[in-house]
Formats: sequence, structure tokens, C-alpha cells
Amino acid sequence: MIRKKIGRQSVVFTESPCITGRGNVAGEKEGKGPLGECFDIVLKDDMYGEKSWEKAESKMLKEAMLKAAARAGKTPEDIDVMLSGDLLNQLMSSSFTARDTHIPFLGLYGACSTMTESLLIASVLVDGGYARHVLAGASSHFCTAERQFRMPVEHGNQRPPSAQWTATAAGAVVVSAGEAANLSLKSRVYAESATIGRVIDAGIKDANQMGAAMAPAAVDTLLNHLEDTGRSLDYYDMVVTGDLGYIGKDIMMDLLADAGLNKKMIFTHYDDCGTMLFSKSQDVHGGASGCGCSAAVFTGHLLKQMEQGKIKKLLLMSTGALLSTISPFQGESIPGIAHAVSLEVR
Amino acid sequence: MIRKKIGRQSVVFTESPCITGRGNVAGEKEGKGPLGECFDIVLKDDMYGEKSWEKAESKMLKEAMLKAAARAGKTPEDIDVMLSGDLLNQLMSSSFTARDTHIPFLGLYGACSTMTESLLIASVLVDGGYARHVLAGASSHFCTAERQFRMPVEHGNQRPPSAQWTATAAGAVVVSAGEAANLSLKSRVYAESATIGRVIDAGIKDANQMGAAMAPAAVDTLLNHLEDTGRSLDYYDMVVTGDLGYIGKDIMMDLLADAGLNKKMIFTHYDDCGTMLFSKSQDVHGGASGCGCSAAVFTGHLLKQMEQGKIKKLLLMSTGALLSTISPFQGESIPGIAHAVSLEVR
Repeated sequence: MIRKKIGRQSVVFTESPCITGRGNVAGEKEGKGPLGECFDIVLKDDMYGEKSWEKAESKMLKEAMLKAAARAGKTPEDIDVMLSGDLLNQLMSSSFTARDTHIPFLGLYGACSTMTESLLIASVLVDGGYARHVLAGASSHFCTAERQFRMPVEHGNQRPPSAQWTATAAGAVVVSAGEAANLSLKSRVYAESATIGRVIDAGIKDANQMGAAMAPAAVDTLLNHLEDTGRSLDYYDMVVTGDLGYIGKDIMMDLLADAGLNKKMIFTHYDDCGTMLFSKSQDVHGGASGCGCSAAVFTGHLLKQMEQGKIKKLLLMSTGALLSTISPFQGESIPGIAHAVSLEVR
Repeated sequence: MIRKKIGRQSVVFTESPCITGRGNVAGEKEGKGPLGECFDIVLKDDMYGEKSWEKAESKMLKEAMLKAAARAGKTPEDIDVMLSGDLLNQLMSSSFTARDTHIPFLGLYGACSTMTESLLIASVLVDGGYARHVLAGASSHFCTAERQFRMPVEHGNQRPPSAQWTATAAGAVVVSAGEAANLSLKSRVYAESATIGRVIDAGIKDANQMGAAMAPAAVDTLLNHLEDTGRSLDYYDMVVTGDLGYIGKDIMMDLLADAGLNKKMIFTHYDDCGTMLFSKSQDVHGGASGCGCSAAVFTGHLLKQMEQGKIKKLLLMSTGALLSTISPFQGESIPGIAHAVSLEVR
């Protein structure tokens, strides 16, 4: 029985997997942005009392996970599976969080698309009856990402206007089975369907052009989602991509218009987390990026809006640039990917 | 309905997800080992006609995937999802394979445990009715892994006796829904249940002691699997770990005996892919390791034995050392993980 597959790339959740908890931690700069008030914890110092940025990022992810579990009224022992990924080589933050919490762990890597990848698989596990409560999350840290992917921060190199600012942020949700969900929440948010993205390579080779590298993948996933589900863009109150930033968002809107979508509808229904996290005056050039960008904007801002009934139907599409530090030296370009999860207030 | 979860960490598959295709590519040295005859493709040159080892590994994974799909009588267009991971930073091999095949892709990272992680999630997607055909695979390459995790190969540094040899190998399977499975196979292999592992850190800090770092995680997963399913070790014709190697296998056997399992039963029912891929005369010191080790031994040797009816019940437990190149310099040890998938001939 392939009863939960729709169209080419999408799946539908019939057992109402419910988001029962959400948690997030944001860095100092992120806390000063327009969404600063939304976050559970805002760091005063991005070292977070640790001796390295990597350890700080690990601690941020762990705190976001524990906060999400606590909001769901659960302890780590109640959680069946933890799904997580980050940008650090060999998923350092996620592995150490899983080690410290002792929760059965499935490591994921979808670059900055990891938040929707983890949410998608968490929803499958709960919807399919394989788990009662699943933690799904992702994290990133400006300083760990810069030194791994670009230049050591201490180098103080100039960033081109197209460069995006990796968010120092972590976010997590608990996805629970319908009957196991906490009934005291006023508005309950459910995962309704999801679309698994394909890798699309637009031929971009510049690590400072992430938005351009990811936008074609986001367009591909969105168009396939709409086709698979038979919906138009205005079915959703809001469609948000993960971290295309200002340039990527413009490319996305142009490509969607080229594909025949109504320009006004795109303008009123579509936005990008990478343009929401920081204000333009914060000097982040191309906008925000990183796994933590959509993870924190989703768990801090968007889910809160859904709980308050301001957004009823949301399509979350975290976007990832599968940038390797080795492949550009071997003449390869940067492949992009985006996964989509449809969320509904019921 | 949490009807597919059993015990603390395990899930059960009730809709008979079936392995309908398998494919693998092995390196030159692997081809000269005791299992050399089993592999679909044995390389004459580990560059595989490419200009870099990374590109060679990508090509190996892609060929293994295409071979598995072909055995299942499928083209890439017939495959709903591809699940894959490798040891390269940012999953280079897997990302490029997903780009070239255009199959919707979920990237995974469980270090050398990735083969069972991908098989486990593939079985969930098929068993739960979310997909008809899913490709699950993993790859590794001696030269890409050495230069990323240890020393450049050209450096020619001496390897301690405990060091393991990363397999140059890739393996993949197609997991298909029961009713979609190819009926012409004589013996059909089904995924029956699975156990999601926890991260266990034994405090090992030496990147040349992978077996010791992973064995405690393998013991934890195996004991939890047996407890969750109410089975004893002799329920299985064979229990195989991924790549503990000679030292890790000895530690595993000791720890299992300490946990009260019958020593003779351990001796007759348990083995490790890392001790099967090479002969001792091939000078690989601690045995084989790498994602590709269990991926190739499973898809080349073990599944063939199952198809021939020589093994009826197999517990495959790929083992991963979540070794980061950064964390040891920050005083961290190497966390281990192992996932288990129970396979049956029916």
C-alpha cells in the first residue's frame, strides 16, 4: 500500500503528527534583529561560556532540544528518536548533543535544508506509527561556519555584497503522535504533507553566492509540491524558504514568475527567513544563512504566529547549498537542495 | 497509533519491505580479498578514470546505485527517494550522485553506520506507504578518507597496528513495497525490524583506535535490539557489525560475554564485516573500515548468501565512529553509534 505518496516527490500525513514543543537559542547579533523578542534564549556572548565556538554551537543545539522537549512536557527519556544535523564536519554539534542526551539518534546532512529534512523524517516516523515523540532540529554558528567554509574570522577578510551571514542559532521541535499530543495548547500545529527535494545544480561556483546556488532548487521543490498536491500558491498563508537571502529571494521570485505564477500572489504569499532574521542596518550584506536561520525563524517566529492563529497554513522550505570545501578546487559547482513541509493549524 | 514501535529503540516492519536490487563497486585491493568474487565491479585503478579520488568515489557510489536499480528492473525515474551518505565533508559523493541521477534525495550522516541508517529509513518509507522504491547506499574511499581524517596518502606515514584500512567500496540496495517487488527472485529478502542506535562515547581519543571507539555502541544497540524484540542471539543465523575490525571485534565479544551472553553462541553467530573484506596477508593491520565496508560486504556477500538460502535471518549492524577532525584538538573523544536492521528470507 503506497497510500501516503502523492505525485512524484510528495508524501501526505494522515495521522496528524503534531508539533507539541519548540525551542531555540539565538546569538547576540540575531537577538538584536527584528525577531529578537521571539527567541527563548539570546546569547550575550557567542562563546556561550564554552572554550570553543564548536562547543558553543553544540550547547546551543542541546539547549534548543531540551527547551523543545520541556515545552512538550517531556524529558529526554520520553523522546523516541532525535533527528538533527548541522554544518560542522561530521555533524559535531548534533553528535555531541545526541551523546549528552542519550536519545536514539539519526544524523542528517542537507546543509541549510536540514531543518525541513529533520521535520520531514520526524513526521514520517510519527505519522507511520514508528515513534511517539521525535525531536527534530538543526544549528549553525557564524564563527564555526566561516572558518570551516570560507576564511578564519580572525583574518578579517572583506566580504562581497552577495555574501550571506551564517546565523548563530539553533532550533528544534518535538513532533508527537496525534493521541500523544499535549491537549492544553490552544492552536495545534500539524504536519500535513511534505515534498522531498531533488539536487539541482545551477552551476554556481562562488561560495559567496549561496542564494543563487539554492534558488533553482527551491523553485523546483515548490513547483513540484504545488503540482503533486494540486494546489496554487495562495493555498498557503505563507510560503517561506530557508536562507536564500535578498539576492536569492529575488531570483526565486523571478523564476516563479517565469514559471507562470501570479506576480502579485508571489509578492503577498512568499518570503524568506534569510531576509527576516536581520535588519538591513545590521550590515549582513546578502542576508542570513545557515541551518540555524530557518530553524530559529521557524521555531521562534513562525510557529508562534501559527499558535496565535495569525498563520493557518505554512509551507516551510529550508534550502541547502551542498557546498564542499574540496569540490570547488576540483572544478565542481555548488549543488542546491530544498525540502518542503506543509504545516496547518487545526 | 504507535503500532510499529517495539521496546525503547526498535521499530517493526509489518508491510514486508523487500530488497529487490543490490549493487556494489569495490577497489582493486578489495577485489583481491577473500570476497573479491562477490562484487559487481572491481576497479583496476582506484582513480576509476577520474581526475580526483573524490570524483572516483562519487562515480563508484553512482555505479552501485545504478546497478542496484538495474537489478530491481528499475530506472532512476522509477525510484521515489535516494538515501545516502559518505565520509567526505558535506557528503560530496552522495550529493553529486543525487545531482546526476535526479532522484529526490535525503542526505544522511552516521559515519560508517550509514549503510544501516539508510536501509532503516528506506524500510520505514516503504513500510509506511510513503514510497514504492527507495535506493539506500553508502560509500568510502581509502585515499579520500585518509587525507581528510588522518594524513595525506603521499606523506607515507607509518600506521600503527590498531589502524584500520578504509575500504574503497560502495554499496546500495533498492527497498521496494511488498506488492511492487520483483516476483522473479527465488529467495526474497525482507526488512523485518530495526533498532535506532544511541551515541555512546567510550572516551577513545585516538583516530587509529576506531574499533575500540565503536564497539561499546554496537554492544548497546545489539543488547537493546535483543531486549526490544525478546530474542536471543541465536534467533539470527548471523549477526554482523560493520567495521569494528580485529580489535573491535574482540572487544565486542568480550563485552557481550560480560553482559551474560553465551560465549559459544557469540563465537558461532557473530562476525564483523571489517574482518571479512581483507585477508590478514593483505597488510591492513586492524582490518577494514569505512561506510563502504559494510555496504559492499552486505550487498556483495551477505545478501547473495541470503538469496541462496545459506543465511535466513541476518542482523546487520553497521557501526560508526563520529570522528571529527576538529574535536580531538578541543579535547573531545570519539563518539560511536550503531544501527541494526533485521533481515529475513521468506
